[in-house]
Amino acid sequence: MQNRQIEQLTQQVLERMFIELEASARHVHVTQEQAMKLFGHALTPDRPLSQPGQYLAKERVRVVGPKGEFSNVAVLGPARNEAQVEVSMTDARTLGLQPPIRESGKVSGSPGVVLSGSNGSIGLQSGVIIAQRHVHLTPESAQRFGVQDKQVVKLQTFTDRPVIFEDVLVRVRPDFATRAHLDFDEANACAMKKGDLGRIIP
Amino acid sequence: MQNRQIEQLTQQVLERMFIELEASARHVHVTQEQAMKLFGHALTPDRPLSQPGQYLAKERVRVVGPKGEFSNVAVLGPARNEAQVEVSMTDARTLGLQPPIRESGKVSGSPGVVLSGSNGSIGLQSGVIIAQRHVHLTPESAQRFGVQDKQVVKLQTFTDRPVIFEDVLVRVRPDFATRAHLDFDEANACAMKKGDLGRIIP
Repeated sequence: MQNRQIEQLTQQVLERMFIELEASARHVHVTQEQAMKLFGHALTPDRPLSQPGQYLAKERVRVVGPKGEFSNVAVLGPARNEAQVEVSMTDARTLGLQPPIRESGKVSGSPGVVLSGSNGSIGLQSGVIIAQRHVHLTPESAQRFGVQDKQVVKLQTFTDRPVIFEDVLVRVRPDFATRAHLDFDEANACAMKKGDLGRIIP
Repeated sequence: MQNRQIEQLTQQVLERMFIELEASARHVHVTQEQAMKLFGHALTPDRPLSQPGQYLAKERVRVVGPKGEFSNVAVLGPARNEAQVEVSMTDARTLGLQPPIRESGKVSGSPGVVLSGSNGSIGLQSGVIIAQRHVHLTPESAQRFGVQDKQVVKLQTFTDRPVIFEDVLVRVRPDFATRAHLDFDEANACAMKKGDLGRIIP
């Protein structure tokens, strides 16, 4: 076999056995209406994210908490039905908040925060969460790994300081790309670098 | 048995099976000579730490890196033979440094930084490390857990979001208190709270 063929084969084998790790920095999701208030216009796509249809917007916001704030925070599109601010536990301390560790989209009863954009500010009654670490899988990759949507698994990382994360949520959808999502505390705790791989332990 | 006796017994059983987790915030060790330059006098003990003989000093320093800095950083005593600055990976990014993940005391070839105290500043040629997560054990607890000095083990945390840390260094000394030491990235990644316990997996 040619070297290129061996490389391609190796890549295919790796993709079948392992999952690429990605670190999610703090970011914000807003509604169409909130985007209008914050920026005076709808979200503008800057570049696509690994999950199909999701994008990093050109717009940025300031996130203001009772104790501290972050400027230049990423806004992800498309617009959602409800605002959500995803931070790490380190970020939460800086802001002065104690958000719950939650699955994305489950914001009821979570603390609020102020968002400030180029065109105006809005106060959120709730929406700040620490996203529960999770794995995005297609139905095919879920079957291959022997796991189901909503299952909680372990994720072993092949990183500079390896970790086995427990309580990792599996999410399965046909339009997902197969990726494991950690926040920056978790990524730093295992010394994750771009392209590092992990393995599901059911 | 009385309730108090049951409580005491439970405590004894817990101590035999598990290890208390502690989070180490960023901190600095300096030499006697460096303390004189930084503060104009030797280190003053403020309060004892969990490891016998170690203390938090009343003195604080500013740690200045090429990209960012931290003020009011803890200084630990007693003075050492060599300066050492222990930061998390998150801190390292803020400072603009890429320190190695190392056992405490092994600073050769690590990046430098500027320390600034009430009396003056000093530039360190090296000394900044990310402390490798580790477990302090007495010879008795090491024997009980079936591990030896310098052994690398796994540490399972019983925390809000449980983690099994791999590559955890065992350190055994008669004058140690039995404790597991994580940095803040690691403590946040497992959502550790004060008093949480862990378990060694050899």
